[in-house]
Amino acid sequence: MMRHLIIPELAADMQRVEERLSEKLAPVSWDPAVCRILEEIRLAEGKMIRPQVLLLSGMCGSRYRENSDRICLLAALVEMVHMASLIHDDIVDDSPFRRGRPTVQSAFGKDMAVYAGDLLLSRVMQVLFEEELVKEGRLFSAAIGQMCTGEIGQYDCCYRTDTGISRYMNNIYGKTAAVFELSCRLGAMTGGCSPETTDVLAQFGRQLGLLFQIRDDLLDFTSYEEVDGKPGHMDFREGVLTLPVLYSLECESVRSQIIQLVCKGREAELTKEDIRHLDALLEESGGMEMARQKAGELAVSSVRLAEQLPDPRIRSCFTGMIRQLSDVAGERQDENE
Amino acid sequence: MMRHLIIPELAADMQRVEERLSEKLAPVSWDPAVCRILEEIRLAEGKMIRPQVLLLSGMCGSRYRENSDRICLLAALVEMVHMASLIHDDIVDDSPFRRGRPTVQSAFGKDMAVYAGDLLLSRVMQVLFEEELVKEGRLFSAAIGQMCTGEIGQYDCCYRTDTGISRYMNNIYGKTAAVFELSCRLGAMTGGCSPETTDVLAQFGRQLGLLFQIRDDLLDFTSYEEVDGKPGHMDFREGVLTLPVLYSLECESVRSQIIQLVCKGREAELTKEDIRHLDALLEESGGMEMARQKAGELAVSSVRLAEQLPDPRIRSCFTGMIRQLSDVAGERQDENE
Repeated sequence: MMRHLIIPELAADMQRVEERLSEKLAPVSWDPAVCRILEEIRLAEGKMIRPQVLLLSGMCGSRYRENSDRICLLAALVEMVHMASLIHDDIVDDSPFRRGRPTVQSAFGKDMAVYAGDLLLSRVMQVLFEEELVKEGRLFSAAIGQMCTGEIGQYDCCYRTDTGISRYMNNIYGKTAAVFELSCRLGAMTGGCSPETTDVLAQFGRQLGLLFQIRDDLLDFTSYEEVDGKPGHMDFREGVLTLPVLYSLECESVRSQIIQLVCKGREAELTKEDIRHLDALLEESGGMEMARQKAGELAVSSVRLAEQLPDPRIRSCFTGMIRQLSDVAGERQDENE
Repeated sequence: MMRHLIIPELAADMQRVEERLSEKLAPVSWDPAVCRILEEIRLAEGKMIRPQVLLLSGMCGSRYRENSDRICLLAALVEMVHMASLIHDDIVDDSPFRRGRPTVQSAFGKDMAVYAGDLLLSRVMQVLFEEELVKEGRLFSAAIGQMCTGEIGQYDCCYRTDTGISRYMNNIYGKTAAVFELSCRLGAMTGGCSPETTDVLAQFGRQLGLLFQIRDDLLDFTSYEEVDGKPGHMDFREGVLTLPVLYSLECESVRSQIIQLVCKGREAELTKEDIRHLDALLEESGGMEMARQKAGELAVSSVRLAEQLPDPRIRSCFTGMIRQLSDVAGERQDENE
């Protein structure tokens, strides 16, 4: 079933996570359209990185086996939150495809997608209340709040060349890192980790999430071909100014040229030559290099955190993950190659 | 502060509800855009009917005073759910105004509105978990799920002349009545009503919600002028086929003419004459009359339920509310007149 396991030992429990997910996304409703949407959402499975990170965090504790039912359930719920956020993201982006399938909004309309995302979130909450997972629910709802805040922040910064690095970091913390932090903390808590290890894992999750997002942002600059119906450099085209651009904007010699390109992007007038020019400016000013360096720093600090973990298996698994993420971020390979 | 009290005795506690609401909508966030949105949401206060119904239900119990802190908090949370649903509704409808102010989506963009609604819902959930209101949380998340289902169902039925009365009733149960039912049940439970009275109140809430929505749907047929930037007959224009239309579609002599008008609506080609023609068809076929009758039946069954309540004050208050709602539904007065 699962094709993207971080380590093969996760296979059996990820199978259980998928079963929980299938169960919680079951197309059971008095409304036929809701059934169709849920069926479609079930089919669009992703790599399930967050649930795997949750499981791995749980394995750092002494009660992983004993609490594995609950751990697998929480992992499924984290994935549902991620799915809901993708559905709402796709409305905002007007994306035609996601995970190789039509998005909810392109298949059913944006109206459906708004409520489909809400429905998923309400199901997550319902399970948490039904299972009386109060402490966990508090963490879930706080992380969802952060996610919304990050998304709102990112949208507010669209095409704004005065965004600044620190607001960008806040935005990606909210939109991506908060759910990684949540996954690690939930796994650790439920797996029976000590409070110290739980804190290390939560910090690790946060750094991992930031690195994950910066890598994703960097990858956007390496793609020029249409992937899933989108040309490359989508972030820049849509006004989402990420690290390489923000660093370059701090460089006087290229600043005004980049601002001009941002304005052209806003008018949807960017040509292929403009994109090549942008890339040249980002390299010339060192913005691209600084962004890679930032990713490198995050990789170093994440590895340092991972090295504090008691379990050598998990330690090497997490450090391996980080190495893989930062390699790609550094070498500008296209994930889709 | 409150200008739309159902009975004056609610004044003091509705003041407390407003305080809770202000507190939970406080523009506290690391993101400046989130603060601006929350501030805007706070200013767009409505009639707060659901919180008042919750309070009145609570007053049927013997522990209203004792538990009034919790009751006022729950009432504020119910209003927040309603506000979130309005924000998401306005994305779907592309509405420029709501409650006399620009909608979140027109002021900040639909992207912001998606996450602003999500943020409100996450704050509701966070409060429920923090206060450890597990039973209440279960009811909240189930009602939000129903709300989404009703909205999805309604959208799925757009421009569909084969919708049928029973699917329409399901849709309005989900989108409107579920939250009224929730309000009554929460009030009753927390106010210390007997299980029997709680059930009566929940049923009453459900009927009240259905009546409320049917009345709203009927009112749409009585307005021809632009109100809040919208011409009248908006439901029909947008393909939301409500009771008068659905009943008329069952009448062979007008069916094909109505289908033609629905098609014209889909192409956004309805003229003023078409709308007059539609009204004539709805009257001629008896569809409008049957819809009014349905509202009348709901009013009768709601009053019967209200009459079972132990407290004479609340009894007469609820029956008065029903009378007012059904008068308007029957007489085709415009609420905005």
